[in-house]
Amino acid sequence: MIKQYLLSPGPTPIPNEVQLAMARTMIHHRTPEFAAVLEEARQGLKPLFGTANDVIIFASSGTGAMEAGVANLFSPGDKVVVVNGGKFGERWLRICRAYGLDVVEIPVEWGTAVEVSAVERALQANLDTKGVLIQASETSTTTLHPVREIAALTRDGGPLLLVDGVTAVGVLSMPMDEWGIDVLVTGSQKALMLPPGLAFIGLSDRAWQRTAETGSPRFYFDLNSERKGQAKGSTAYTPAVSLVFGLCAALKLMREEGLERVYARHDRMARATRAAVSAMGLKLLSPDNPSPAATGFYVPDGSDGDALLDYLRAHMGITLAEGQDHLSGKVIRIAHVGHMGAFDVIVAVSALEMAFRKFDLPVTLGKGVAAAQDILMEALD
Amino acid sequence: MIKQYLLSPGPTPIPNEVQLAMARTMIHHRTPEFAAVLEEARQGLKPLFGTANDVIIFASSGTGAMEAGVANLFSPGDKVVVVNGGKFGERWLRICRAYGLDVVEIPVEWGTAVEVSAVERALQANLDTKGVLIQASETSTTTLHPVREIAALTRDGGPLLLVDGVTAVGVLSMPMDEWGIDVLVTGSQKALMLPPGLAFIGLSDRAWQRTAETGSPRFYFDLNSERKGQAKGSTAYTPAVSLVFGLCAALKLMREEGLERVYARHDRMARATRAAVSAMGLKLLSPDNPSPAATGFYVPDGSDGDALLDYLRAHMGITLAEGQDHLSGKVIRIAHVGHMGAFDVIVAVSALEMAFRKFDLPVTLGKGVAAAQDILMEALD
Repeated sequence: MIKQYLLSPGPTPIPNEVQLAMARTMIHHRTPEFAAVLEEARQGLKPLFGTANDVIIFASSGTGAMEAGVANLFSPGDKVVVVNGGKFGERWLRICRAYGLDVVEIPVEWGTAVEVSAVERALQANLDTKGVLIQASETSTTTLHPVREIAALTRDGGPLLLVDGVTAVGVLSMPMDEWGIDVLVTGSQKALMLPPGLAFIGLSDRAWQRTAETGSPRFYFDLNSERKGQAKGSTAYTPAVSLVFGLCAALKLMREEGLERVYARHDRMARATRAAVSAMGLKLLSPDNPSPAATGFYVPDGSDGDALLDYLRAHMGITLAEGQDHLSGKVIRIAHVGHMGAFDVIVAVSALEMAFRKFDLPVTLGKGVAAAQDILMEALD
Repeated sequence: MIKQYLLSPGPTPIPNEVQLAMARTMIHHRTPEFAAVLEEARQGLKPLFGTANDVIIFASSGTGAMEAGVANLFSPGDKVVVVNGGKFGERWLRICRAYGLDVVEIPVEWGTAVEVSAVERALQANLDTKGVLIQASETSTTTLHPVREIAALTRDGGPLLLVDGVTAVGVLSMPMDEWGIDVLVTGSQKALMLPPGLAFIGLSDRAWQRTAETGSPRFYFDLNSERKGQAKGSTAYTPAVSLVFGLCAALKLMREEGLERVYARHDRMARATRAAVSAMGLKLLSPDNPSPAATGFYVPDGSDGDALLDYLRAHMGITLAEGQDHLSGKVIRIAHVGHMGAFDVIVAVSALEMAFRKFDLPVTLGKGVAAAQDILMEALD
């Protein structure tokens, strides 16, 4: 039995306070008790989304909320521009195609952010575009896309902007009302420090308006039935009650820490991790636009990243994330999202150094750790 | 602070063993550890569904699995026969209409079961029917429909039979392979003794075949992507990990009790409750085809069922369920599904008697209780 450290970009570790809240005695979901819980959750989500509008809660994974955005806002044949710079960009693409949309794809090299000008050109070449779909943080490539700048192109009468914020909401400031994001989506198992099983979606006024005018077949993910129900203290269908208990506890923890400090902590952990892997002589997967949710890096040429990951998990109790598709075996990702702090970075980096030594890869023990420490010290008075 | 008794037909009380399993340290879902958990759950579900085929697990409420059945098995314009004898029959209807199916409705008076001959006539009058949709146990009216007899009409080349088994699977024997049910659906928060948040769907061979040939736009609820993923030890999208931990614990509890004893316990609790409310002089909502999952009854003329329910909850800590739609205020439902036993029946009946006394309704304290005791004694050696 080795002590386990879950340092993957979701699921993420659960705070005891959240665990205890989820163990609260089960209640019926059509009661004043549950209505009060739901209302607390609804209000608590708004600052995270930076919106005065409703944030809808679904019992599903984050993908369900992505699908809700597509199914409620577009009709078959509608033209959309999809930024595809990783596994989750690809997911937008697949959802849009499943719904018969006319997709203009902007392929982006994995590990780089989309150029704002590329989106601008796509919109100019496709004046009938109804929506732009993008990730804020593309988890698979640990890259941030310039959502704020793209929102400046789409707001004020342009196409709707749908943002997958699964590893962004609660990690960095994503004020959807201020920036002009029309749809912002996240899941429970990232910054919100919950088990997987809840998805969240916030909509702008014009997006809500669009739901009334258009859409594809939908039922479970129908945004208007949920909005109507949740405003009255219940969900359209049975909610994941225990996870909603946990959500309230998680939101309380985030309020107590203060959102600005939550964002600064994620930023600091990410900078420390990047400094550490750079000090180890490793190449970052996303050097120019790195996400504060996770840090990807290439393993040394000729080494096997997946073998390293297996060793880290089996012998050291450390779960990091793999590279996907063509990056498989070449890349490792260290997450710093949710219920994590300075010493999770230290654990990840020191474990990596020790695994490198075990695998006879070039490494100076403690060198990466020192680089991380240097940055993590910032938080100390 | 009053001790709480949750006696509604879902969510239902959570056993400590399940609660503890859900509090297990979070793990990543793309690991051998989770694959082992998922495989245990998958195998454990098969006896409950009485199938040798895969049972697919979704992170959603049961409604999601109902929608999955409709979206994967029918194309817009397909003709289906829907038995509508309550709120959940209505839900099949609404899902089918949301997907643009051509719906032949068989309306059934609330509290009665559909006549097999009515289904037979509908099928004879609509030879192009692609599917029949029904509840096994219509929770809103505490009524059992004759699913086995209807399956005898549809199997062997007839239309597909889709059964909402949300308050039936795990409550009574529903051997889908033996009876010829094509789609059987349930949710986590009933007989499976879990919080809400998981849905389950089993398919016959011919239903799986149909998914390859037909269907409406779908992504999150795409059965084939899930089947492919889950057979390989993971889900297509992030699973509700903690609920799957709990599922394994709940299935283990059910195996230890023995499914036949689980079914007998539900049947006995239901018979005891029916005997009790009858002894109290109350009229059963579903006298001829009562469900073993819950017992509905009319409150005395001129009394207000919802006021009784409010009093029971606020002053006695007892949560029962209300009558819905035109039965609102006229009907109360007592559930006996999931983690419940003899003394939950005693609690419900005695509380009801005491509330009747408080409301100056005709009642002899202990009379309903005695009738229940008489039946519950059967289980004692």
